Amino acid sequence: MDIKEKALKMHEKWNGKLEITAKAKVNSREDLSIAYTPGVAEPCKAIHEDPEKAYLYTIKRNAVAVVSDGSAVLGLGNIGPEAAMPVMEGKAVLFKEFAGIDAIPICLDTQETDEIIKTVSYLAPTFGGINLEDISAPRCFEIENALKEKLDIPVFHDDQHGTAIVVLAGIINALRLIKKEKSDLKVVVNGAGSAGIAISKLLQFYGINDLILCDRDGILSGDKNINWAQKEILQSTNPRGVEGGLKEALKGADIFIGVSAANIVSKAMVQNMNEDAILFAMANPVPEIMPDAAKEAGARIVGTGRSDFPNQVNNVLAFPGIFKGALEARTQITDEMKVAAAEAIASMVSADQLHEDCILPQPFEKGIADEVAKAIVQCAYQGK
Amino acid sequence: MDIKEKALKMHEKWNGKLEITAKAKVNSREDLSIAYTPGVAEPCKAIHEDPEKAYLYTIKRNAVAVVSDGSAVLGLGNIGPEAAMPVMEGKAVLFKEFAGIDAIPICLDTQETDEIIKTVSYLAPTFGGINLEDISAPRCFEIENALKEKLDIPVFHDDQHGTAIVVLAGIINALRLIKKEKSDLKVVVNGAGSAGIAISKLLQFYGINDLILCDRDGILSGDKNINWAQKEILQSTNPRGVEGGLKEALKGADIFIGVSAANIVSKAMVQNMNEDAILFAMANPVPEIMPDAAKEAGARIVGTGRSDFPNQVNNVLAFPGIFKGALEARTQITDEMKVAAAEAIASMVSADQLHEDCILPQPFEKGIADEVAKAIVQCAYQGK
Repeated sequence: MDIKEKALKMHEKWNGKLEITAKAKVNSREDLSIAYTPGVAEPCKAIHEDPEKAYLYTIKRNAVAVVSDGSAVLGLGNIGPEAAMPVMEGKAVLFKEFAGIDAIPICLDTQETDEIIKTVSYLAPTFGGINLEDISAPRCFEIENALKEKLDIPVFHDDQHGTAIVVLAGIINALRLIKKEKSDLKVVVNGAGSAGIAISKLLQFYGINDLILCDRDGILSGDKNINWAQKEILQSTNPRGVEGGLKEALKGADIFIGVSAANIVSKAMVQNMNEDAILFAMANPVPEIMPDAAKEAGARIVGTGRSDFPNQVNNVLAFPGIFKGALEARTQITDEMKVAAAEAIASMVSADQLHEDCILPQPFEKGIADEVAKAIVQCAYQGK
Repeated sequence: MDIKEKALKMHEKWNGKLEITAKAKVNSREDLSIAYTPGVAEPCKAIHEDPEKAYLYTIKRNAVAVVSDGSAVLGLGNIGPEAAMPVMEGKAVLFKEFAGIDAIPICLDTQETDEIIKTVSYLAPTFGGINLEDISAPRCFEIENALKEKLDIPVFHDDQHGTAIVVLAGIINALRLIKKEKSDLKVVVNGAGSAGIAISKLLQFYGINDLILCDRDGILSGDKNINWAQKEILQSTNPRGVEGGLKEALKGADIFIGVSAANIVSKAMVQNMNEDAILFAMANPVPEIMPDAAKEAGARIVGTGRSDFPNQVNNVLAFPGIFKGALEARTQITDEMKVAAAEAIASMVSADQLHEDCILPQPFEKGIADEVAKAIVQCAYQGK
């Protein structure tokens, strides 16, 4: 049975990948009067007097809403909220299995930006954090920004920042092998959607100055029909004013980061990159260039989104620990925290293990989420 | 330790009365590729082609949102969404423990009727049913009606219909002991909020013709400042045009149903009721009249909302089975179903057990939810 058949069969068997478990058991009248009326009035009154107590007496402390409108689901596109549910449930499974977090999938029957913002803000009393997922760009930026403004709980769009953090972790470890200064690096990001823009911003924040962002029409430029988020990042990218397409952008580049489409990077393009080139070819399921081809063309380190090649860029390395830390410290997730998370992930690969084909830890290595959480909490305590 | 201290202590220990359990375990790359990417794309595509498949592949089949705005919580009033959470979590515990349903508490940070309607309708793709809870009247009527219109999943405001169903179950069994015809009964309902109005409507639907609805100002009348829902029910109540207060209403009445306030029914009022009077004095924690006093004044059957007196009217007898049946049959909950549910609950008291002090089953008796669910499903199949 192949993976597709198996996935359908298992989803049918699970009949929903999550269930609710009651920690409070009710086997007697007394149980009932403690977990429910009349006893339940006491924690209600305590929270009414001091809203902070919600973190003591309710699920809020450990509950994250995984919210999508189904507008940009995996590679499937705008398939709507019902069809997005299996992904959000899967995400909730990972939250639980990797970080013990109680995540609840919420797929919304609206794709209007303002309505999504309002709806999620109305949901906030129940939750300790909001994980946005599979919402199309540039709406995802507006929604995340507005919610971070409005709410006092962490809000995090994983397609953006989760990917950015793991890519940065990969770059940090690649630079342990390839002794280049980050301030000298020339980086090309291909794909100007939610992930591409977030990666670019985080790399700039990390200290990478020379970054060119491309989309399917080539190097991003103001002449083209671009959205407000692309316009914004355009201000700080392409400092050398390179013109043309991906080919021109990649000439002399040290790092290629692809969140775009299959097979659009040729061997010739890689040959034109700088020595010791690093490629993260994360298009799914077929990368921008296959690792073997990239290596043959002279690349030194290649990562993909796939689990069957080395150096898988997998968000599961980041988001469980990010939320674990943010819930503990009760903080929004800052750029400093994202960098600290990337460094924590990178540090999980020991000097002994570090190798061109091992720049990122395996998702099932123990302790990753805890290390990432620790980094977040530390930043929070330092006011970063 | 009294119940209040115990409740606080246990809520602190639970730190949230619910948790999420992952049915899909992820211990290997293969697990990950089945529960999450790339395998998860298959059920997504299947649901996109046929939305019905959401019931096969996602939690929708067995998931109920327990939604409140915190505007009318227990006897505590408008304490807001955060402080309402312990109640909604408690309700979710009962859903799980009594009917195996995965209920998710959602407390909304808005009390605007239209916003609540929109928000809940946006949440619908995730859930198989909506249980509204602790929303103040008359907003609760408008919200429930609009959502039943809009959504193709069951919507049920338990404070209204759960109470009404259990009261009706009690009346059905009381009439097994007291051989009066339902069409001859004179009934007084005291308290014209959500529960009082819903009880009145269900009793009328059941075939009770002579019903007087009172509120704190006495018998409901058009001269008073009453809301649209009260105005509506006024049309069909008080057929004899009785004027005055509760005292006048109760003269010659067969049944008193109180969802009002402590100690407002006197012994003299009970003495003025018809022979074999039945009283459901459900004010909490102190009933409209204490059972002993009512009995001394000549009442034959007395029920309350309390577990320390006989004949407790407890919603937990109804809502778990109601939703179990409605989820199975994928149906809205009709008045016929409410009556069938009441009959199912009543039937759980055998002829041997039936007694003035035993007209309702105990919440922990086995099989109640299943019997109620069966009744709902049967109605649905009969198109009722």
